[in-house]
Amino acid sequence: MIPLGGLEQIGMNITAFEYDDSIVVVDCGLSFPEDEMLGIDLVIPDITYLKENIDKVKGFVITHGHEDHIGALPYVLKEINVPVYATKLTMGLIENKLKEHVLPKPVKRKVVKYGQSINLGCFRIEFIRTNHSISDAAALAIFSPAGIVVHTGDFKVDYTPVNGETIDLQRFAELGKKGVLALMCDSTNVMKPGYTMSERTVGKTFDNIFADNEKHRIIVATFASNVDRVQQIINSAEKYGRKVVVEGRSMVNVISTAAELGYLDVPKNIIIEMEQMKNYPPEKLVLITTGSQGEAMAALSRMAANLHRKVSIEPGDTVIFSSRPIPGNEKNVSKVINELAQKGAKVIVQDTHVSGHASQEEIKLIYSLTRPKYAIPVHGEYQHLKAHAELAQGMGIPKENTIVLSSGDVLELTQERATLIGKVQAQGIMVDGLGVGDVGNIVLRDRQHLSENGLIIIVLTLEKYTNQLLAGPDIVSRGFVYVRESEYLMDEAKSIVYAALERCLDNKVSDWSKIKTEIKDSLSDYLWKKMKRNPMILPIIMEVE
Amino acid sequence: MIPLGGLEQIGMNITAFEYDDSIVVVDCGLSFPEDEMLGIDLVIPDITYLKENIDKVKGFVITHGHEDHIGALPYVLKEINVPVYATKLTMGLIENKLKEHVLPKPVKRKVVKYGQSINLGCFRIEFIRTNHSISDAAALAIFSPAGIVVHTGDFKVDYTPVNGETIDLQRFAELGKKGVLALMCDSTNVMKPGYTMSERTVGKTFDNIFADNEKHRIIVATFASNVDRVQQIINSAEKYGRKVVVEGRSMVNVISTAAELGYLDVPKNIIIEMEQMKNYPPEKLVLITTGSQGEAMAALSRMAANLHRKVSIEPGDTVIFSSRPIPGNEKNVSKVINELAQKGAKVIVQDTHVSGHASQEEIKLIYSLTRPKYAIPVHGEYQHLKAHAELAQGMGIPKENTIVLSSGDVLELTQERATLIGKVQAQGIMVDGLGVGDVGNIVLRDRQHLSENGLIIIVLTLEKYTNQLLAGPDIVSRGFVYVRESEYLMDEAKSIVYAALERCLDNKVSDWSKIKTEIKDSLSDYLWKKMKRNPMILPIIMEVE
Repeated sequence: MIPLGGLEQIGMNITAFEYDDSIVVVDCGLSFPEDEMLGIDLVIPDITYLKENIDKVKGFVITHGHEDHIGALPYVLKEINVPVYATKLTMGLIENKLKEHVLPKPVKRKVVKYGQSINLGCFRIEFIRTNHSISDAAALAIFSPAGIVVHTGDFKVDYTPVNGETIDLQRFAELGKKGVLALMCDSTNVMKPGYTMSERTVGKTFDNIFADNEKHRIIVATFASNVDRVQQIINSAEKYGRKVVVEGRSMVNVISTAAELGYLDVPKNIIIEMEQMKNYPPEKLVLITTGSQGEAMAALSRMAANLHRKVSIEPGDTVIFSSRPIPGNEKNVSKVINELAQKGAKVIVQDTHVSGHASQEEIKLIYSLTRPKYAIPVHGEYQHLKAHAELAQGMGIPKENTIVLSSGDVLELTQERATLIGKVQAQGIMVDGLGVGDVGNIVLRDRQHLSENGLIIIVLTLEKYTNQLLAGPDIVSRGFVYVRESEYLMDEAKSIVYAALERCLDNKVSDWSKIKTEIKDSLSDYLWKKMKRNPMILPIIMEVE
Repeated sequence: MIPLGGLEQIGMNITAFEYDDSIVVVDCGLSFPEDEMLGIDLVIPDITYLKENIDKVKGFVITHGHEDHIGALPYVLKEINVPVYATKLTMGLIENKLKEHVLPKPVKRKVVKYGQSINLGCFRIEFIRTNHSISDAAALAIFSPAGIVVHTGDFKVDYTPVNGETIDLQRFAELGKKGVLALMCDSTNVMKPGYTMSERTVGKTFDNIFADNEKHRIIVATFASNVDRVQQIINSAEKYGRKVVVEGRSMVNVISTAAELGYLDVPKNIIIEMEQMKNYPPEKLVLITTGSQGEAMAALSRMAANLHRKVSIEPGDTVIFSSRPIPGNEKNVSKVINELAQKGAKVIVQDTHVSGHASQEEIKLIYSLTRPKYAIPVHGEYQHLKAHAELAQGMGIPKENTIVLSSGDVLELTQERATLIGKVQAQGIMVDGLGVGDVGNIVLRDRQHLSENGLIIIVLTLEKYTNQLLAGPDIVSRGFVYVRESEYLMDEAKSIVYAALERCLDNKVSDWSKIKTEIKDSLSDYLWKKMKRNPMILPIIMEVE
């Protein structure tokens, strides 16, 4: 068992299972960049290990259609062409993604139903129905010669789901009776006591809000991928006689895919184009939009900032945030709320969201149904994995059988023992524009330095052989100080460069790298003493014969 | 009434009150930079209006000793030398700050007691006892010919404070009987229903944690300024026979000031130097440290990252976060918690903090005691101010008398009416190193651009008159791609520059700015098409005769 991502972090879920000549891979997600990854668009897993063992790799089995489980597939499938197995909606969303990329050759894809098994080398994989914040989520029972591993994927226990049925607890129990070697269970909400509320409770809140605000336009921001949430907004819209407008590219994509595949029940004519909005009074309209995380370029943020071309916020608009801010997004969300409030909108955030992940009691339920020998918590930062291990110990699993792994660990599991037998490459690979992996730590360090301090460029033209100054020093700065206000500073900088240069000539220093260092160091000293600042200093020497 | 900061934002509190020839200023705080203020250390208020009316300015009256109320004083007092009035601990903390700066000449300072009034021009200012997360916090009754304005400062109602007495509710009531023209009341927690818990409840939690972890070292991270919290840690330490070590520069400063002035009751010999730690077993020690917000350079973060020179985290250490993450700091706090957990520490965050700000029911209490004619909410983002105005309306204040101001608004208040009569400069001024206000929007925009995309510098030496290329193009990049991996890219870039230059020569373009634009545009096009990236491109032309 080799997790190539998803441990010690939220996101970029991918785990390889290997036995003899067979490897199957569960999920292939991306993660969003950390704050210090300046300019990076997304992070994908390092699949070097899979490439080196490509003959063994039988395929990807995917638990559900969220970015942190499918988002890296287009990148990875460009490098290794292996089949992909997933439930219907999940596959629909994967196909959406693949359309945006050019694969060297088509990839085999197979839609799997709940309860169905597929044989991949010496593994048999069974898809088990679960509940999550997207339909068609599956847990996996991985049958191997070493025993059965149950991987929950992201899940919760919802006794009244909006779409589909309750998680197949009977099957978990049956597997438990057979004997489960290891349980790999979602840790996202392991710090939360009690049970996660049913998705349906949000529908009740929507109904109340629609009833209380019958005179105003309603705008609901939520995750594009939360198809059940969208369903409930449409349900309330129908009940209260409103037309629905969908805004935001990802929202339009997901809704059309889900509706096409029958995962969204859309009454005829309820959805209208944005252009038709003007034909309806505000109180007959609901907008469903992206931007619930305060993302600067998302539709709701543009509306709030008066930058949206087609929708402007009017006093009286009722804006519902049907989401919770993901850690790191709190301030952006707050900014959008302030902007909306300033334009006279009423903003509602209470009881408008429930999590898609199991809380403590639900996790305990899965342990007591499956009774695994080993507990290997997945999907979480270290603090979550550790808390999860402690919870598993509370469920009677011996401490030595609760295993907190790091990405890249190679764990050998048998009926007798669990042993860490190695380590493979599992750092995330950064994607910036079309570049995959061409931005590394040096580049990021430079971006960091530039972002905090700006830069000063000093250009000199020297005569070859004599090192006489033919032109310059020219000084150009960016992101340092506003130049017109600091001409004196640039003048002083110039004389420091002259002096440094003269010292070099006097001492017969002709090595350019030494001249550059001298210039850099003297200017750097001066600026630190004078301003307590530390810009990047780049001396460039041109040579003319 | 002219708020120069503190409205539509949390932080940088400062409000001027003017009548005839007198101006008094309440508070003089700083704010911490927003995410987009790259490289900025802090933000201070723009006091242009005070400088222009310096003859009228009678002094600063300060409500309490937190950074967002006193932090800008050293900067502002360098520009306008006026007296400062504050309670004892507040003044002690102000003096700490002033010591770190060089003022052109000494500033008059006067310590004021609760219940005492000072006369400043035609104003009389009375300091009223309140509760907050620092001792010696005061509300102000501002008596003016136009009427009485009550400014709460930051406050809560604590019936069992750790130090000092409960907020002087009787005085608020008395003022209400006399007739309060306007109430300016803290909005920080106006979204929170109910009452804020007493500071003393945290002491109980500490006792429980000390009892439960009697075999381990305890480390408590909290705000340096929360003197009452520190008192409670010391109380528990004494009760459970532990020595106390204080770590972090600001923590040491505040504790010594508070102890000196009698705001901290420190049993003899309980505090030891860090060097003495080795003489005690872990279970006999408590460390009180900075870093509760996950700040990269703070003591706890350095311990967690194994970068602290004197303390390393050991398995079994019990680390208490006695704080809540300030919005924007959640991810950093989480990172530190993960690092601590990985080193085997037990991290406790539950029930270890209470807010220092009044919740809804406490705010209502102040309204019903003071019964102001006008409600002017302060200390909050727009959403808070607006919610506060609605709460005031719920308390019977007519809608037109609840006034949500922006920083810079000039509000004229009389017994008859409240009128917005103007606007003064009130943008924050950014401080970067020793530079105050020399980093503006252009510099920040460049830093942003550099941080996300890096830069490419192209240097050419041209012959004067003929524009013949004498040297170059040399291409230097930083923060763009790791150069050794992309030599082909730099080669291609060079040929694009050559081509652009040739086009210019062919078309007899001799204007250097046009040549630069041609180079920049063609390279920019190429990189966007090839990589979907947009680095800053800086062509520099040197001229040699």
